[in-house]
Amino acid sequence: MRATVIHAPHDIRVQEVPDPGIQQPTDVVLRVLRACICGSDLWAYRGESARRSGQRIGHEFLGVVEEVGPGVNGFAVGDLAVAPFVWSDGTCTYCAEGLTTSCPEGGFWGSVGPDGAQSDGGQGEAVRVPHADGTLVKLPAAAASDDRLLTALLALSDVLGTGHHAAVGAGVAPGGTVAVVGDGAAALAAVRELTRGEGAHSVIEAVGTEQSMRTALGIVRDGGSIGYVGVPHGSATGVDLGVMFGRNIALRGGVAPVRTYIPELLPDVLDGTIDPSPVFDRSIGLDEVPVGYKEMDERTALKVLITP
Amino acid sequence: MRATVIHAPHDIRVQEVPDPGIQQPTDVVLRVLRACICGSDLWAYRGESARRSGQRIGHEFLGVVEEVGPGVNGFAVGDLAVAPFVWSDGTCTYCAEGLTTSCPEGGFWGSVGPDGAQSDGGQGEAVRVPHADGTLVKLPAAAASDDRLLTALLALSDVLGTGHHAAVGAGVAPGGTVAVVGDGAAALAAVRELTRGEGAHSVIEAVGTEQSMRTALGIVRDGGSIGYVGVPHGSATGVDLGVMFGRNIALRGGVAPVRTYIPELLPDVLDGTIDPSPVFDRSIGLDEVPVGYKEMDERTALKVLITP
Repeated sequence: MRATVIHAPHDIRVQEVPDPGIQQPTDVVLRVLRACICGSDLWAYRGESARRSGQRIGHEFLGVVEEVGPGVNGFAVGDLAVAPFVWSDGTCTYCAEGLTTSCPEGGFWGSVGPDGAQSDGGQGEAVRVPHADGTLVKLPAAAASDDRLLTALLALSDVLGTGHHAAVGAGVAPGGTVAVVGDGAAALAAVRELTRGEGAHSVIEAVGTEQSMRTALGIVRDGGSIGYVGVPHGSATGVDLGVMFGRNIALRGGVAPVRTYIPELLPDVLDGTIDPSPVFDRSIGLDEVPVGYKEMDERTALKVLITP
Repeated sequence: MRATVIHAPHDIRVQEVPDPGIQQPTDVVLRVLRACICGSDLWAYRGESARRSGQRIGHEFLGVVEEVGPGVNGFAVGDLAVAPFVWSDGTCTYCAEGLTTSCPEGGFWGSVGPDGAQSDGGQGEAVRVPHADGTLVKLPAAAASDDRLLTALLALSDVLGTGHHAAVGAGVAPGGTVAVVGDGAAALAAVRELTRGEGAHSVIEAVGTEQSMRTALGIVRDGGSIGYVGVPHGSATGVDLGVMFGRNIALRGGVAPVRTYIPELLPDVLDGTIDPSPVFDRSIGLDEVPVGYKEMDERTALKVLITP
């Protein structure tokens, strides 16, 4: 099959790789209908986070079950399913508590898993999904023929659940004020002015740089919470514990256990209460993936949808 | 009257100072029955936190109301009352939400308050209490003649409420595991062993050094919370945001809004459900306060009770 491979910073290629197959009884093979490029993929692209040359990439995808291991109970050939950006076994104590990202049998797509096997990336024609019963969430079959809905459902694999995790971490509640620190110019004074000089009860830190964390601390209200889901990068944290201490600022968040949130968020996406599909502003085929990275790197595209 | 004054590191003196009097209508003057020395007072004593020469010191005390300003409604001469370690007006939005430590009219005993007046410290014969209605909490008159109970009630001014704040921040809950990082040798491996290698759901960080925060991060379970009430000191924080991110560790706490907790904790102290009095392992008179500092500094005393 064809899949996306990263060879070096700025060297992303779509090339022939071995077809995925069942390796463990709990595996399924998923034929990818939709995938996309994540802002965090750009860090690998830019060389800011290390990758082995030849590693697979992409961690957001949904598709149709093509092959089912003998130990899988919840899925059959032909089922439509979405994968979260981390696989997990669904049976350990962490999974039972909803912290699927800490599952000792789990892993990130494209990495070498706990079983020593190289996993597939999401930006390809198909993916071997370990611990399918714990990892995948079934979607209504009818969604496969609804292009807008299929795109919206893809957001369940990462962005929607990650945003939800940030809101949970930031303690977003009715009546409270919320500020989002994104990857743009922040005007601290504006937030202060909008909140009677006090700052926002809840601040979502979605970038992960020292500067963005300092901004979050600067606009959060005393006693408020920063929900952080921007993967920390750079040597300094921007966390000033002296400031946090005196003002009783809480810091909560981290890598989102998206698998836990999908069943909660799915009904809202299905009935249109939430439509995250507009987050994708560019649509390409698999062969154009290197162009997609370039466009996101150059900020001519926000988030690129891939139809393999 | 006589009160404790810090002149320089290791130079603590009990000396004559002006008698306190009503300066604002909302003041009361409290005759101190019991006070004590806090671990955080030692930082001033050791020169680790700055003090002006001649500044008053001590922030934990209870006593009898001796004089009442015309704007005070809740207290009369002769009332027994305990003060939290920060005064607060009880009327602002922060006080209404229970975050009394962020009250813009509040301040720490011994500091210059928002009104520009030098405040009294708790380690003296009497204290002018600003915003008495917001600050003080009335105690049963009978407690004044119960030496053990009076000592236990003094803990409401700081240590008991601070410990409670740490437990709230650490998300302590029935069935969960709790570890406390104190000012002693920590054995990370022991905590891991006691928790099936997973770490504790709740970790209370009660020191405030880089090392203690690193220990807290080392023994907290994935998805767990660190409740921190040790005043941060030193240049580095010990907060490794990359570790916290991957393991979804929450960090909550800060300077405890003790005033808010006193009404909740008071009944438990009165009926003996909680008896914090054993925290005091040394009892002295006011003139011996310099000796008390020395003993705590040299660790021959844990916490020194003062009866002026």
